[in-house]
Amino acid sequence: MSLIVQKYGGSSVHSTERIQRVAEHIVATHQQGHDLVVVVSAMGDTTDELLDMARSLTPTAAARELDMLLTAGERISNALMAIAIQSLGTEARSFSGAQAGILTTGTAGRARIIDVVPDRVRRTLDRGAIALVAGFQGISRDTGDITTLGRGGSDTTAVALAAALKADLCEIYTDVDGVYSADPRLVPDARLLEHVDYEVMRELAMSGAKVLAPRSVEYAARHQVPIHVRSSFSAKPGSMVAGAPDLPSAEYSSVIGVAHDASKAKITLGGVPDTPELTTRILQVVAGIEAELHFSVQDASWTAQGRADISLVLPAADGPPTLRALRQSCAELGIEDLRYEEQIGKLSLIGSGLLSRPGVLATCCETLAAAGVHLETISTSDIRVTALCPAAQLPDAVRAWHTAFDLGAPELAVVHAGTGR
Amino acid sequence: MSLIVQKYGGSSVHSTERIQRVAEHIVATHQQGHDLVVVVSAMGDTTDELLDMARSLTPTAAARELDMLLTAGERISNALMAIAIQSLGTEARSFSGAQAGILTTGTAGRARIIDVVPDRVRRTLDRGAIALVAGFQGISRDTGDITTLGRGGSDTTAVALAAALKADLCEIYTDVDGVYSADPRLVPDARLLEHVDYEVMRELAMSGAKVLAPRSVEYAARHQVPIHVRSSFSAKPGSMVAGAPDLPSAEYSSVIGVAHDASKAKITLGGVPDTPELTTRILQVVAGIEAELHFSVQDASWTAQGRADISLVLPAADGPPTLRALRQSCAELGIEDLRYEEQIGKLSLIGSGLLSRPGVLATCCETLAAAGVHLETISTSDIRVTALCPAAQLPDAVRAWHTAFDLGAPELAVVHAGTGR
Repeated sequence: MSLIVQKYGGSSVHSTERIQRVAEHIVATHQQGHDLVVVVSAMGDTTDELLDMARSLTPTAAARELDMLLTAGERISNALMAIAIQSLGTEARSFSGAQAGILTTGTAGRARIIDVVPDRVRRTLDRGAIALVAGFQGISRDTGDITTLGRGGSDTTAVALAAALKADLCEIYTDVDGVYSADPRLVPDARLLEHVDYEVMRELAMSGAKVLAPRSVEYAARHQVPIHVRSSFSAKPGSMVAGAPDLPSAEYSSVIGVAHDASKAKITLGGVPDTPELTTRILQVVAGIEAELHFSVQDASWTAQGRADISLVLPAADGPPTLRALRQSCAELGIEDLRYEEQIGKLSLIGSGLLSRPGVLATCCETLAAAGVHLETISTSDIRVTALCPAAQLPDAVRAWHTAFDLGAPELAVVHAGTGR
Repeated sequence: MSLIVQKYGGSSVHSTERIQRVAEHIVATHQQGHDLVVVVSAMGDTTDELLDMARSLTPTAAARELDMLLTAGERISNALMAIAIQSLGTEARSFSGAQAGILTTGTAGRARIIDVVPDRVRRTLDRGAIALVAGFQGISRDTGDITTLGRGGSDTTAVALAAALKADLCEIYTDVDGVYSADPRLVPDARLLEHVDYEVMRELAMSGAKVLAPRSVEYAARHQVPIHVRSSFSAKPGSMVAGAPDLPSAEYSSVIGVAHDASKAKITLGGVPDTPELTTRILQVVAGIEAELHFSVQDASWTAQGRADISLVLPAADGPPTLRALRQSCAELGIEDLRYEEQIGKLSLIGSGLLSRPGVLATCCETLAAAGVHLETISTSDIRVTALCPAAQLPDAVRAWHTAFDLGAPELAVVHAGTGR
């Protein structure tokens, strides 16, 4: 008998029929003798629908009130799940994030978990009942305000509860069969990765693989919580995300997968003087935004004057306000060449020891050229090669790299109905 | 400058457009210099939609989980209202019932308020901001569980906050212009009552007038909170509900209004022995249900044996389970004559000193007969005459009494679009 934390994403619970089916699965697990904590996301598109209502009132709603608004979604889905489980004759109680002791910073909209004090959850388990916890939410330790953990926050809720309760396993149920060498929707022969190291998983997640939220992987690595990524639509074995020592050495091939991200925008400051003052100004503007800075040296005539192109790759939603702020700074500094692309394609090759194999970077560039993909920039580290290309060419680019590094499986992946998380 | 608590019902906020309009009204009141606490119900039919989802999972959902589910509705409407107010440039913060310090009993589904500790609400007012509080909900003082206050609970939230904050006034905004001598939807010449005594209002509310929840009136009377009932769709003056000393004596006419209730069912046990044992058994079965018992003596032959008809008038939703329970008790006691009417019409004449005017009861019976209404039973007290009739005849019955006691106004009432609360 072990303690398991299960998390179900929004597509797994997008209707009461689906909730009923998931409830049956939960009860079956419980009847195998496991203690069970279940984290449920908001039903289907609830979060987006609530956001749309807020945006119809004002484009600039206060984050504190948005948090109060959005957390209602998870309360609804968790209460319904508790009701569905009870209707099958098993005791269950649902808790809000605050009731489950998810204590966070006060940063509305993207609070971080400071501590988890799951006393009520533990008492529920001690009574033999299933504890349900609303994902994505907590309570600010300082202000008592309701907070949200940002996109993918329910993954983090599940991992944090697993860590605090010293659970044996954290199961993340989603709408794909596990972690793949590339998105099977783009790459039909993508290979299911049975075992994934925390670091690789973190890079995949940060590079756009949507199967797990990056912060949940970091949290799991820090507390050594093993994560089992599985489909809520099939009984396939899924992928185990854990520390390197647990993994068979066969998984240490140098190239593991291709992640992609079509949700980024790009701002380019053209031919700007490479001065500390400007860099500081830019860093001030993008502070608090998950932006990546790319510096690329311009043509020779400019280079002599120490000028460069500076590109910012950032979440598309942050694009317009950042652009406005940069425009002001540029005006002060006399820089007029500011370009904006509202969607840019980003693809990343994830692996290990990439820098020690010089052939990798060359293959990356050559295959994109052969596939007719316009390579905008490319950067590399020991565990990741990241390229930017036009958004429309991203699927071709992903398939080109996946084939070039021979990452495909003999069998095609099955993509289930239902998207999003 | 005074402190005002305003409450807006579900029909006042059934869309984001309506929320925007109500927000403008709230900001205008605030700009007149008043401190403002606002209680908002769930948008339109949200509560019923959430209940339908729960019922699609099981007809017998646990009350604790239903409370967790339903309270999400008020969080959504209050957060959206805060966002709408902020978009108009006025500071506002929304609070859940728990955050606003609404402490209740642990009875899920119909908790009672034990105490109100609105520290955070007061601090918000002290900062000059508008405090929004989710209606209908609180937190159990003993268990920490989220609770709901039953139908019409948002009225009680508003009155309880007004009492705790020693507000100058509690304004209840609804979809009618105020308290009428009868439902203006049934009786076009119903008269708006400018001043209504707490006791009369309580009788009207308990007899089916939907404009205020009975418990909120009791709470207001106990704490002497004046309630101003107004329309959220017009600027009409509305009705003031307050203690008798505040009222002009002109309002002390002996007959004030006619309330009706079409939401009741009726169970009749026919020709049963009038023994303490049976009465006790019946009282046990209906314990916890808002049921009224009516005893009526049967024809002479039975009377000799001390037998009577016993009728139970109770909320329609409680009908089927009560019927099942009574059927068992009756079988034990050998009583076979058990009849059920799933909808019964109930009408009540509300006033004062009714028993001292014997003509009242006679007029009640005669006008119903003249209107062709089948009078099933009639009972009277000093402040109320209540009759039961077939549900289909209820509108005719209400109009007959309203005319007979000359309660009409010279002008016809205006009924606004949007129903329900």
